[in-house]
Amino acid sequence: MSRNIAIEMLNQIPVHDQQIELVERKCLGHPDSIADGIAESVSRALCNTYIDQFGGVLHHNTDQGEIVAGESLPQFGGGKIIKPIFILLDGRATKDFNGEKISAETVALKAAKDYLKTILPELDIEKELIMDCRLGTGSTDLRDVFKPETGKIPRANDTSFGVSYAPFSDIERCIREISSYIDNTLRPKYPVYGQDIKIMGLRQGNSINLTICCAMVDRYVSSLSDYIDYREKLAEEALKIAKTCTDKQVVINVNTADCDVECSLFLTVTGTSAEMGDDGSVGRGNRANGLITPNRPMSMEATSGKNPINHIGKIYNLLSNELAHKCVEKVDGIAEIQVRLLSQIGMPIDEPLIASAQIIPKPSFTLKDIEKDVYEIFDSGLENISSVTERVIKGELKTF
Amino acid sequence: MSRNIAIEMLNQIPVHDQQIELVERKCLGHPDSIADGIAESVSRALCNTYIDQFGGVLHHNTDQGEIVAGESLPQFGGGKIIKPIFILLDGRATKDFNGEKISAETVALKAAKDYLKTILPELDIEKELIMDCRLGTGSTDLRDVFKPETGKIPRANDTSFGVSYAPFSDIERCIREISSYIDNTLRPKYPVYGQDIKIMGLRQGNSINLTICCAMVDRYVSSLSDYIDYREKLAEEALKIAKTCTDKQVVINVNTADCDVECSLFLTVTGTSAEMGDDGSVGRGNRANGLITPNRPMSMEATSGKNPINHIGKIYNLLSNELAHKCVEKVDGIAEIQVRLLSQIGMPIDEPLIASAQIIPKPSFTLKDIEKDVYEIFDSGLENISSVTERVIKGELKTF
Amino acid sequence: MSRNIAIEMLNQIPVHDQQIELVERKCLGHPDSIADGIAESVSRALCNTYIDQFGGVLHHNTDQGEIVAGESLPQFGGGKIIKPIFILLDGRATKDFNGEKISAETVALKAAKDYLKTILPELDIEKELIMDCRLGTGSTDLRDVFKPETGKIPRANDTSFGVSYAPFSDIERCIREISSYIDNTLRPKYPVYGQDIKIMGLRQGNSINLTICCAMVDRYVSSLSDYIDYREKLAEEALKIAKTCTDKQVVINVNTADCDVECSLFLTVTGTSAEMGDDGSVGRGNRANGLITPNRPMSMEATSGKNPINHIGKIYNLLSNELAHKCVEKVDGIAEIQVRLLSQIGMPIDEPLIASAQIIPKPSFTLKDIEKDVYEIFDSGLENISSVTERVIKGELKTF
Amino acid sequence: MSRNIAIEMLNQIPVHDQQIELVERKCLGHPDSIADGIAESVSRALCNTYIDQFGGVLHHNTDQGEIVAGESLPQFGGGKIIKPIFILLDGRATKDFNGEKISAETVALKAAKDYLKTILPELDIEKELIMDCRLGTGSTDLRDVFKPETGKIPRANDTSFGVSYAPFSDIERCIREISSYIDNTLRPKYPVYGQDIKIMGLRQGNSINLTICCAMVDRYVSSLSDYIDYREKLAEEALKIAKTCTDKQVVINVNTADCDVECSLFLTVTGTSAEMGDDGSVGRGNRANGLITPNRPMSMEATSGKNPINHIGKIYNLLSNELAHKCVEKVDGIAEIQVRLLSQIGMPIDEPLIASAQIIPKPSFTLKDIEKDVYEIFDSGLENISSVTERVIKGELKTF
Repeated sequence: MSRNIAIEMLNQIPVHDQQIELVERKCLGHPDSIADGIAESVSRALCNTYIDQFGGVLHHNTDQGEIVAGESLPQFGGGKIIKPIFILLDGRATKDFNGEKISAETVALKAAKDYLKTILPELDIEKELIMDCRLGTGSTDLRDVFKPETGKIPRANDTSFGVSYAPFSDIERCIREISSYIDNTLRPKYPVYGQDIKIMGLRQGNSINLTICCAMVDRYVSSLSDYIDYREKLAEEALKIAKTCTDKQVVINVNTADCDVECSLFLTVTGTSAEMGDDGSVGRGNRANGLITPNRPMSMEATSGKNPINHIGKIYNLLSNELAHKCVEKVDGIAEIQVRLLSQIGMPIDEPLIASAQIIPKPSFTLKDIEKDVYEIFDSGLENISSVTERVIKGELKTF
Repeated sequence: MSRNIAIEMLNQIPVHDQQIELVERKCLGHPDSIADGIAESVSRALCNTYIDQFGGVLHHNTDQGEIVAGESLPQFGGGKIIKPIFILLDGRATKDFNGEKISAETVALKAAKDYLKTILPELDIEKELIMDCRLGTGSTDLRDVFKPETGKIPRANDTSFGVSYAPFSDIERCIREISSYIDNTLRPKYPVYGQDIKIMGLRQGNSINLTICCAMVDRYVSSLSDYIDYREKLAEEALKIAKTCTDKQVVINVNTADCDVECSLFLTVTGTSAEMGDDGSVGRGNRANGLITPNRPMSMEATSGKNPINHIGKIYNLLSNELAHKCVEKVDGIAEIQVRLLSQIGMPIDEPLIASAQIIPKPSFTLKDIEKDVYEIFDSGLENISSVTERVIKGELKTF
Repeated sequence: MSRNIAIEMLNQIPVHDQQIELVERKCLGHPDSIADGIAESVSRALCNTYIDQFGGVLHHNTDQGEIVAGESLPQFGGGKIIKPIFILLDGRATKDFNGEKISAETVALKAAKDYLKTILPELDIEKELIMDCRLGTGSTDLRDVFKPETGKIPRANDTSFGVSYAPFSDIERCIREISSYIDNTLRPKYPVYGQDIKIMGLRQGNSINLTICCAMVDRYVSSLSDYIDYREKLAEEALKIAKTCTDKQVVINVNTADCDVECSLFLTVTGTSAEMGDDGSVGRGNRANGLITPNRPMSMEATSGKNPINHIGKIYNLLSNELAHKCVEKVDGIAEIQVRLLSQIGMPIDEPLIASAQIIPKPSFTLKDIEKDVYEIFDSGLENISSVTERVIKGELKTF
Repeated sequence: MSRNIAIEMLNQIPVHDQQIELVERKCLGHPDSIADGIAESVSRALCNTYIDQFGGVLHHNTDQGEIVAGESLPQFGGGKIIKPIFILLDGRATKDFNGEKISAETVALKAAKDYLKTILPELDIEKELIMDCRLGTGSTDLRDVFKPETGKIPRANDTSFGVSYAPFSDIERCIREISSYIDNTLRPKYPVYGQDIKIMGLRQGNSINLTICCAMVDRYVSSLSDYIDYREKLAEEALKIAKTCTDKQVVINVNTADCDVECSLFLTVTGTSAEMGDDGSVGRGNRANGLITPNRPMSMEATSGKNPINHIGKIYNLLSNELAHKCVEKVDGIAEIQVRLLSQIGMPIDEPLIASAQIIPKPSFTLKDIEKDVYEIFDSGLENISSVTERVIKGELKTF
């Protein structure tokens, strides 16, 4: 089999040389990201349940769900939740297979709550959360039960596509690194920094402006001046991280909507604005690479929650992301690469209708220098497409 | 103030001398009783929240709620829940008072779940339960904030009544004692006996027939013969208890709907039929004395969940029960007493429109011998009516 | 087959000679009655769907459901609904039979809404109502498909009972007649009288006091004095009707909780307190004879919504009611009769464990004069028990 | 005030000259589009309610909501809905202003149902739909009440952006025109063509491939051959329309997932896959120009349902779309234009931080020839930004 892999020049100015660049990231506790994270947790838990019960993954798609904000009364030293957050789990799952019943809804509730406990430790899910589940019934076509060991490649569920690009630009790296740093280093030391953070980046020429909206957790803030200190500390820390990602000039603003005089701050009881103002949905936030990048090609598909067996909207977005970054990493001379994988409904997913690489070579490189290696990375990536499925199930691939 | 206490002869055959007597009890894990227990827990938690926040109890009524059964696959050695139980909390509560917000819904969710954990320890409330809360907004009339220390008597919320009687008949005692024995003695030793038990009693003349429907918890039953052993054990134990309550002939049947041949048994995963077949509602089960007694005067009011300050349907049912039993206990010569307390909307609850005692004296006694003492018990009971409220809040009075 | 029909003397004072008598009726628009009416409508619609699709009635019980009050702003001339009423339909139904699917939930929603449109024409069900449906899955035992033409008698679903009595006392008749009169005569002329009416009756000796709480529909009331006029008119009309039912002295109070000075009136937008303050549940209101009668024997079973094939809690309550009234009508000499029908799980429903008639003969009559005719009425009523089922399905029997 | 309008060259190959182009449209009955349409209808209804009640638009955002699929049994000649579609309305709205209450939830329910009746006339919303509403409470900052006549410009709610481009490429035009043609011409004649249509377009070089997935309404299809006829007819009609939009070679496939042999077709009862398989969410479908265009700059913001006063995610997406098309229409020499409007939280929305136009001039044109006219179009568009708000409220602007 010869795969339809098309490699061509991309005649445009690389993003990092464009005058204006916009990038955004909704971190883990943003209502849209909470929705994504739950959707993906539920899908993974279903996968594992199916494997335990039947030795293979059955049909499901849980790339749905709604976070309806509650009401809270944050205050310095610790406020309270007035009205619980409401979360609706939906999507569909196989609940009956080979005459056996599957506890799809209890699995979904457990997975979603376990995930929430990890992400929002300040939220008391017993009393500050109402979680409903209206998981529809899906049916599994016998031919599509995914059993990794068989090596059989599933067929595409739809005529659809995945897109991605590499490498990350400076501003993209700034945002990704700051997000990681807060989650992994800063919050463990300063639990005042809630999980609901939105980082919005604007680059104009060589000047980067990052606006960080970070929910502060009220029980760790004693006063307005304490709050202001934490806000400033976050700006400083973020700036340090940003400096490691770029040589451009960086300005960082934190919680610019705050009105200190009126004490209208981004203060929360639980670390997320879902407690008070903001609803969230699956698929409305970050793309599969963790960013929202209006200057870049993007897919509208929600990657999180889709089944990792044959749903192109998931697998091809994840794979195109891997392919793009691997090409940049392994092949010399790529200034920018855009990847598009297009499926054909009913065909094996390792045989896309087209796998397209559009490349801006670095100065002094030609497409010729590059295309063979790129071809091989694409071919081998498609050959091993089941690895995407397997790593999704193990939770080794991030989807948002 | 002279209270309107009417004491008169009741010219009828005492229940225990009637030919046929029917009595029923739905124990704690029966879906209707679960609903009652939750309703009462929520009301008590709200009372305590109001007292903590405002020093007095505010208006609320949570005598509502619905248990929607899930689906389960019980099996010997332990089965599983396929679809979670759904519980709707409703009713109304004051959520705003003196410019302060009250977390009524989080209080309700917490109270309901804590109660469930006590009553149904085999139920995993995180994954096998969906609990929604649609608690409406009530408003508290300032004049009705109940502050125990002030000694001010609240005004009746409605023109309504409470009714009760004493003493318990033999069959009533049998049922109450068996229920207690299973909960307090038998289950701690044999967790196989679930909480969902219905005891139905029929007395024809001197012959008592008790039918016990008891959910068995599957993980503690290894086989059909094991199940049959436990069923027989329960019949034996119940018979022993019954013998301590009556000299009449007693026959006990356990799980008569079982069809052993088809292995159609009352086997459950969690100890309640709410996991599979049976929905439940507040106010559909036991009356305030823990029994359903179609031969006796009964009130249709749900006692559980109503506010204990001024809701006649709660306070007068509880008080009439206490008065009836106290009269029988303290006053010689009462074969049977029926109590009715009738309120007048807007009047202080210690001044009922009528407090009626209808008495069947024992042979050789006349009403004259009895009425003065009964009067005093009634008068003093009404005088101290706030004690009912206080004990309800402390959880010292059972409502179902 | 000889049925176990026991006829005996009842040695007690007939209710109408007792000193105190309490009776209550919740009319059609009372939240509890709305719940009952919906439950029964849903059951009937399911019966008819099953008959259309399979030629027989399949298993279901929809004697569940919850009305959660909304919020409204009534005002003279017409106010508005601020928050919709929420109604949860639950219970269970057969959704799959002989490999065919049944649209149980769409049938239930349609029946419930059609019923509401009839009962509460002022309620705009599209925007002022949220109706959810969580109808569980029931399973139909093939032996229990009820096909009227086969003449096969279903088996009792449970060991349970029905109770009733006859004749109605004066106060009971007053209440029933006033309720009918308002629904059938007064409201068609004066739509100001809403459907949510509670009539509470107290007889003390020869003096009857009726308290009518009647929701007024705001768009038909222009002012406080208009409201007062309608209130007085209702009292007058009710008094006229009461006079046709009793020779005793009758006093009628309407909307006694009104505080005219503060303009705190029973004014509603839609004619029911479910729009604002009061939740409702199935089985919490009237018994099968349309009344709540704490001086009488009552069953706690919800009659409405239960399947009319083999659910004793429905069939025996309805049949005992019919038997009691037929005895009083056809047999001379009965001052009062109490009927109890007790089933045995698994036995044909025309063969109760006991059918008990307890009779207070009129002066100058003995049981002997009466018992043969009563026996025959009972025997024939049981013989034709399928007629109860059939008339329930046709909607010819009221259940609340 | 001089607005920050930046006009620059875009050095890239116009999309229509790129080798591969992907475009997709989810038509009105696709679950994601249903969600969008409802969200926008609700917002518009709230706007009008606020204007009626207060003379200005109050704060709200209803860009949320979830469509949970039901279950159906389509069949030739007409099948049935087995389980209703469930729709959750959420988001937030001002429910209280200046001491007056607003019926936000009843307004939302009405608007959503009215919209559904227009879009899905085959759906019986009374019985085949459950619509819940959990609209949170928003608060309106007095300074932000939008009163058109005052000419006062609202301040941006967030630091956010809108993006768009013009002109449409051939394939984009094909898809838009086919969609319109089916809705406006074909369906009125052939109601068999349901509203749930997804058109997926792939251009490779000069060859356009359009895949149309169109739900067929079962009651208008009598047999498989009838179905096949309609499928072919649609392909033919679509091809005719496509020919009017492009000179390139076009191939059209309809319902490629059909398996005629197994009679596994895209047959529906109501014309939408929401009846059976597919859930939908706001903001997951088309961008503000009605298309999903992974080769183009896109915003992830849901345009539908956001308030049209100060929500940048709505206003700037709509305005950038208008500006791009107006430039292409009015200014000679533009091969392609990309527009980005970036706001600054708290600043008047007619003064964006940057309004960026990136232009690929047509051969023989230079930026110089173009930029002055573009500047004026931008400046005047921003000057009249309130017109966007006004036309949104009137329903004159499409948001998806």
